[in-house]
Amino acid sequence: MENVFEKFEKVKYEGPDSNNPLAFKYYNPEEEIAGKTMEDHLKFSVAYWHTFSATGDDPFGAGTRVYPWAEISDPVERAKAKAEGAFTFMEKLGAPYFCFHDRDIAPEGSTVKESYANLDAVVEVIEEKMSETGIKLLWGTANMFTHPRFMNGAATSPNADIFAFAAAQVKKAMEITQKLGGENYVFWGGREGYETLLNTNMALEQDNLARFLEMAVDYKEKIGFKGQLLIEPKPKEPTKHQYDFDVANVVAFLRKYNLDKHFKVNIEANHATLAGHTFEHELHYARINDMLGSVDANQGDLLLGWDTDQFPTNIYVTTLAMYEILKNDGLGSGGLNFDAKVRRPSFEMKDLLHGHIAGMDTFAKGLKIASKMLADNYFEDFIDERYSSYKEGIGAKIVKQEIGFDGLADYALEMGSIKNSSGRQEVLEAKLNQYILNN
Amino acid sequence: MENVFEKFEKVKYEGPDSNNPLAFKYYNPEEEIAGKTMEDHLKFSVAYWHTFSATGDDPFGAGTRVYPWAEISDPVERAKAKAEGAFTFMEKLGAPYFCFHDRDIAPEGSTVKESYANLDAVVEVIEEKMSETGIKLLWGTANMFTHPRFMNGAATSPNADIFAFAAAQVKKAMEITQKLGGENYVFWGGREGYETLLNTNMALEQDNLARFLEMAVDYKEKIGFKGQLLIEPKPKEPTKHQYDFDVANVVAFLRKYNLDKHFKVNIEANHATLAGHTFEHELHYARINDMLGSVDANQGDLLLGWDTDQFPTNIYVTTLAMYEILKNDGLGSGGLNFDAKVRRPSFEMKDLLHGHIAGMDTFAKGLKIASKMLADNYFEDFIDERYSSYKEGIGAKIVKQEIGFDGLADYALEMGSIKNSSGRQEVLEAKLNQYILNN
Amino acid sequence: MENVFEKFEKVKYEGPDSNNPLAFKYYNPEEEIAGKTMEDHLKFSVAYWHTFSATGDDPFGAGTRVYPWAEISDPVERAKAKAEGAFTFMEKLGAPYFCFHDRDIAPEGSTVKESYANLDAVVEVIEEKMSETGIKLLWGTANMFTHPRFMNGAATSPNADIFAFAAAQVKKAMEITQKLGGENYVFWGGREGYETLLNTNMALEQDNLARFLEMAVDYKEKIGFKGQLLIEPKPKEPTKHQYDFDVANVVAFLRKYNLDKHFKVNIEANHATLAGHTFEHELHYARINDMLGSVDANQGDLLLGWDTDQFPTNIYVTTLAMYEILKNDGLGSGGLNFDAKVRRPSFEMKDLLHGHIAGMDTFAKGLKIASKMLADNYFEDFIDERYSSYKEGIGAKIVKQEIGFDGLADYALEMGSIKNSSGRQEVLEAKLNQYILNN
Amino acid sequence: MENVFEKFEKVKYEGPDSNNPLAFKYYNPEEEIAGKTMEDHLKFSVAYWHTFSATGDDPFGAGTRVYPWAEISDPVERAKAKAEGAFTFMEKLGAPYFCFHDRDIAPEGSTVKESYANLDAVVEVIEEKMSETGIKLLWGTANMFTHPRFMNGAATSPNADIFAFAAAQVKKAMEITQKLGGENYVFWGGREGYETLLNTNMALEQDNLARFLEMAVDYKEKIGFKGQLLIEPKPKEPTKHQYDFDVANVVAFLRKYNLDKHFKVNIEANHATLAGHTFEHELHYARINDMLGSVDANQGDLLLGWDTDQFPTNIYVTTLAMYEILKNDGLGSGGLNFDAKVRRPSFEMKDLLHGHIAGMDTFAKGLKIASKMLADNYFEDFIDERYSSYKEGIGAKIVKQEIGFDGLADYALEMGSIKNSSGRQEVLEAKLNQYILNN
Ligand SMILES: [Co+2]
Ligand SMILES: [Co+2]
Ligand SMILES: [Co+2]
Ligand SMILES: [Co+2]
Ligand SMILES: [Co+2]
Ligand SMILES: [Co+2]
Ligand SMILES: [Co+2]
Ligand SMILES: [Co+2]
Repeated sequence: MENVFEKFEKVKYEGPDSNNPLAFKYYNPEEEIAGKTMEDHLKFSVAYWHTFSATGDDPFGAGTRVYPWAEISDPVERAKAKAEGAFTFMEKLGAPYFCFHDRDIAPEGSTVKESYANLDAVVEVIEEKMSETGIKLLWGTANMFTHPRFMNGAATSPNADIFAFAAAQVKKAMEITQKLGGENYVFWGGREGYETLLNTNMALEQDNLARFLEMAVDYKEKIGFKGQLLIEPKPKEPTKHQYDFDVANVVAFLRKYNLDKHFKVNIEANHATLAGHTFEHELHYARINDMLGSVDANQGDLLLGWDTDQFPTNIYVTTLAMYEILKNDGLGSGGLNFDAKVRRPSFEMKDLLHGHIAGMDTFAKGLKIASKMLADNYFEDFIDERYSSYKEGIGAKIVKQEIGFDGLADYALEMGSIKNSSGRQEVLEAKLNQYILNN
Repeated sequence: MENVFEKFEKVKYEGPDSNNPLAFKYYNPEEEIAGKTMEDHLKFSVAYWHTFSATGDDPFGAGTRVYPWAEISDPVERAKAKAEGAFTFMEKLGAPYFCFHDRDIAPEGSTVKESYANLDAVVEVIEEKMSETGIKLLWGTANMFTHPRFMNGAATSPNADIFAFAAAQVKKAMEITQKLGGENYVFWGGREGYETLLNTNMALEQDNLARFLEMAVDYKEKIGFKGQLLIEPKPKEPTKHQYDFDVANVVAFLRKYNLDKHFKVNIEANHATLAGHTFEHELHYARINDMLGSVDANQGDLLLGWDTDQFPTNIYVTTLAMYEILKNDGLGSGGLNFDAKVRRPSFEMKDLLHGHIAGMDTFAKGLKIASKMLADNYFEDFIDERYSSYKEGIGAKIVKQEIGFDGLADYALEMGSIKNSSGRQEVLEAKLNQYILNN
Repeated sequence: MENVFEKFEKVKYEGPDSNNPLAFKYYNPEEEIAGKTMEDHLKFSVAYWHTFSATGDDPFGAGTRVYPWAEISDPVERAKAKAEGAFTFMEKLGAPYFCFHDRDIAPEGSTVKESYANLDAVVEVIEEKMSETGIKLLWGTANMFTHPRFMNGAATSPNADIFAFAAAQVKKAMEITQKLGGENYVFWGGREGYETLLNTNMALEQDNLARFLEMAVDYKEKIGFKGQLLIEPKPKEPTKHQYDFDVANVVAFLRKYNLDKHFKVNIEANHATLAGHTFEHELHYARINDMLGSVDANQGDLLLGWDTDQFPTNIYVTTLAMYEILKNDGLGSGGLNFDAKVRRPSFEMKDLLHGHIAGMDTFAKGLKIASKMLADNYFEDFIDERYSSYKEGIGAKIVKQEIGFDGLADYALEMGSIKNSSGRQEVLEAKLNQYILNN
Repeated sequence: MENVFEKFEKVKYEGPDSNNPLAFKYYNPEEEIAGKTMEDHLKFSVAYWHTFSATGDDPFGAGTRVYPWAEISDPVERAKAKAEGAFTFMEKLGAPYFCFHDRDIAPEGSTVKESYANLDAVVEVIEEKMSETGIKLLWGTANMFTHPRFMNGAATSPNADIFAFAAAQVKKAMEITQKLGGENYVFWGGREGYETLLNTNMALEQDNLARFLEMAVDYKEKIGFKGQLLIEPKPKEPTKHQYDFDVANVVAFLRKYNLDKHFKVNIEANHATLAGHTFEHELHYARINDMLGSVDANQGDLLLGWDTDQFPTNIYVTTLAMYEILKNDGLGSGGLNFDAKVRRPSFEMKDLLHGHIAGMDTFAKGLKIASKMLADNYFEDFIDERYSSYKEGIGAKIVKQEIGFDGLADYALEMGSIKNSSGRQEVLEAKLNQYILNN
């Protein structure tokens, strides 16, 4: 294999006016923003599946992208060569983190034992590459949706053998995540849901899902894995309806089974919009529920009804996302993972760099703008003033729970005319544009 | 006022082949289904707002429907005449229940005191009509979304005076609901949400909403109201984003504030679909979470993105809804409220009858079909068999929580090939068609 | 290869109460409806791609279905064995027609010449099987969307070589369609559109598409192919935006280039709904524009935003579709092609039968209901009466174009009050239910 | 009436860093862009309905905005006072144009004659104000959707009297548009469509619509009105399905009836997205079909399914719109009409200014960016290169129609491997961001 990524220059910051498609225009890793470097704020991660495994196929078309390691016939050797290529790519790009599913990094064997062995063999190479390059693992996860055995779910499969198989898979995936110093472990239940209620025992499936997650919590404790457990909501696709529909659905579920203290959420922008929410809504909701763990940084096309997983290039979206993240005081052990793929006709290896550069630049610029917004406190001051009636008088009594319907009705019976205040949405949107266009 | 409803015949059951648009074809109130009369199973309720208050206006057009009482100029006298007309209508229709918002039955006054007095005056008439006709109150509620004061919410308003006003309103609405023997009390938070996050303190708003609901629980206890408290989810419209997005969002919220034991949900078909769920999904989810309280029986147009509130005429939807309701052993104190309006060009008074007849017939037929499905146990048997692996062996251990990842991995390491079973969705859908077409 | 389809019994009509999942409940080919047999009315066709080529893979999962011929390693031999299996399946099912893309029936070679040769080799087998079984070809088409070369379109590719390649492919596909007695030839432009306007010359692409279709018209004439040329609209997927968005978009395009007399449309139910129309709208619109050619009979899930291509089991949809088709006096050379796939977990060979049986039964029942509706003339009479004002007086003058704004304004200035009539949608929907539930 | 708008300062350009919510940050009317002033490029127009008539009501709530003239009881006097206020507002804002429906400017009378007289009375005032202020009329139109008589359509009503009434209305609206020097006349068929196909004669309705438009063309000629006739597409809302679904649907219709040379389209951003297209798609499609007439400049919320008519504040949308408009060499007699409303909680009179300022600034900035893009030719050069294969060799033959399937197949049979080129979407999106963020 020729490691074609070797040929690329390391991507450099060249500033806003650069015409070089292979340079950063806004992402300057060393640049300090509000006391931290951009690199520390953003914790960008490359997704092993989209960038090193997927070929650009879609439901109506074959792959368009050919990786250099594709020519290697032995699957484990191919996986090792892929790791080699992947780390070269990430180094050239300057991404500090990566994420993987077990099946992205090593081929499934014909038995569980063989699959374990394949993982062990490749993990060794990855460990070495990590140590060489300093690139870290944001999170690991287990792919329990591609193989036909998971056609009806993994932890929610009607077949107990498949539940067992999934448990064996997560066990190993958590172990290798731990071994590689992974800062989080993610559960995305792409097949945990149903195709039709006509054949589904939802109550049992949800109980089983809870049992599975409890086992994961126990096992984490047992092996002393310190990473954060994360659940990634998605409403549908591939399944007709998924249980982890949105953040609130996940939270309702976790609270039911007293699992909420063990998990946070990994919010994907495109999953938020497929569920009918803005990305910033999901971030905000998670934040005020103390559940914001990590982010899958991509964007969807709101006129399309499926997960397009595009690289995030909308400055409004990245600005408002970084605004929530800064208000959350960062993502803790989480980061910004590009669960994003280049468009199918962007089939060249360098298009993989183009996509990441576009996403990193847009998030970097969003960070700068959001940081400026927070420094100025313009929006915070507006909100503070808008809700000021809860700081004293009847409002303070409400907040302190010193009054009930009787007292409030007495108050209302004596109350004069009520003065509403304008929501000023147009002014606020215009102000947001100034932040975006002038910074 | 000429009470034009007097001119209508009482709607009678004439059987499936009747050509009379003003007769029931499938709803035969006395007919026994699985040991209960249709009337007892279905607990149909007329919505005072759509059927006696709305005029058919839409965002682009004025009202098309003129009620006989519209000519009366004094608002309280008009409200009394409306009550007169309403009960005549309901009697002719043969609906056993009705529902109302405070502002549907009596006009808002210029002060809280006056509004209370208006309510008292009309409630007296309604009480009388209820006693005369035997028609019962399924639920009452307070309209806290129409008046401009609620432009930014009621319990989640940034203005504490408005919170107080809303409290005074719910207090009274709960009292009159109790006085009229209402079996439930509903909260629909049409403005409890936001237009833009840029001006919103979501954390405070949600805390305030919880405080408001706690006050309601306290007040209910205080006055000894025995009805069930219900929350009606809706994802959006009129507000850009509403907190009670879907059943799970409501459940997550209630669990957070330890309010879940005091509330159930009132599920509206069209709200379910606006949130991206089927109606039966929301019913099923509420059922297995022990939260299924009552139903707003209507249907939306899935190709339109707003709440069309159509009378339910889709036999699949009513069959699957009744199937969930029968599995829930009925709705307890809840019922089937037609939160539905005739289309704007159906402007004649008799069209109001047509709409209800269409809805009642479709639900009656759905009940019969669902009851047959349950009696046959065809779908239950299929599901039972499908999940049978959890009854013994490794599956039973999983369910009893006698095993963890270690044990399951050991099992998986020794496991032979896994045999999946077909989900048979096409067979099940064909069978459902047989139930619908042959019964 | 073991031709496993041999083991199935021929699917028989057993009537509405049959419990046999492998029997027809409503489709009785010989049964006469309005002077024609069901078989002649319905002209069911099996789609070679979904039923003999697709494996149940989706964007997140591998195939679940293994065909018996999969074990044959030589691609042309495999294609021949597949043809063998396909015809056995179709014979057992009792489908009178099939449809194919060139690449469904024979593998692409490494050169155009080789691809031609592969087609010739397999077409010979198919011709033989057709003659043996009496199964006919509804239409052929060329797959110009799967191969990576078509990533940016075929006739609308920015690369002239690809235009040429596509021309060579359609030329051959039309020839073999003719050879096999195909009654139509279809164009579905799955990649004829754009991913982003930023890189697209839409004007040139549309001109090129028109040039391509003109060449097809010329070539059809040249070889004396008598089948109908059809365009199949779809708004999006796989492409972000497709030029043949809906029937009207196709018609606008064809009229621009004076191609409308040479083409009709092949309407797919799921494509209609993805474009924001009901299936019956698209059928109706095509019918009154004299463009209704053929039908891809499937259904989508309106809560999902992609093409689910489900077997059609919704009786409302099939009834209203057959109603339009009967009003069109049938589909002429067109038919009902099941562009439909079983759900991914329905992975057994017999599930392929289940799906078709479900679809055929639902269409057969829809035909019966629609035929009864037309015989009764209930809806037609209602409509006739509703528009009766255009038959005389001022209305007749409008229709005959004997009057203009001046005359109409004079009339309006003298006109008394206007009497609108109710649209009676609720009555009509209830009546439709009676047709469905009582027949 | 106190003309409260008198109190506002004239809105001035204060530059990008202004903190004054009542100043322009980007719109500097005198500034030259590519040889024309911003004012000439943009031709902003205020919509009489949203800004002077609508009160902020929505389907679930009453109006929140009280205009100063609301206190005047005589409808015609109120309309005159409104005109007074409107022109003060527009002068303060610095909008060069306005648009109206007949019913926005003058109240409907109880007869056609009275309605005509009301219009004449108010038009006199408007004429005077126009001459005083120099504000011009972009277009007029007739409101044929609000009044109950139009519940089933106007030109497509099943009732010929309503067709006549509509004709009388358009006749007068066109006359007053002409009298006021209107540069265009618009048709928006908000009720020209259907609620259900079950009661609809679509063929007759579309023929009647064509007859109506032909009469309009004749009448325009008769009175010598020189303005452009425009049709405004919208897919749905208020009607379940509208005939003028999108630009292509309108074009298909016009071509059918040979009306295309007489009309262009007025494209509304929010209508484009409701139909499943981007705004720029509709502009582009209209442009290459020589149908781009004018623009309703607003934006929707893609997560909401109804027409939110928000002021346009998304810089991507305005940039890409201006890009299309500049490529069209402007809009000719058309302009940018703010068919936009402030959010319901923005109920103060000054919020009306805020909304327009936000929209004008965003379009002004979009113009600057788009103009820079065109000057640089970056995207044009990319596209030119991408399609260069059509300039010579086989591509040139295709374009010149010198070759058919036979010739192309011969070519393909000899062709070596085809070299596709990357679509480079990620690079192009990143470049667009540079234009937006650096200019
Ligand atoms: Co993700
Ligand atoms: Co995704
Ligand atoms: Co409701
Ligand atoms: Co509703
Ligand atoms: Co198709
Ligand atoms: Co399809
Ligand atoms: Co408009
Ligand atoms: Co609009």
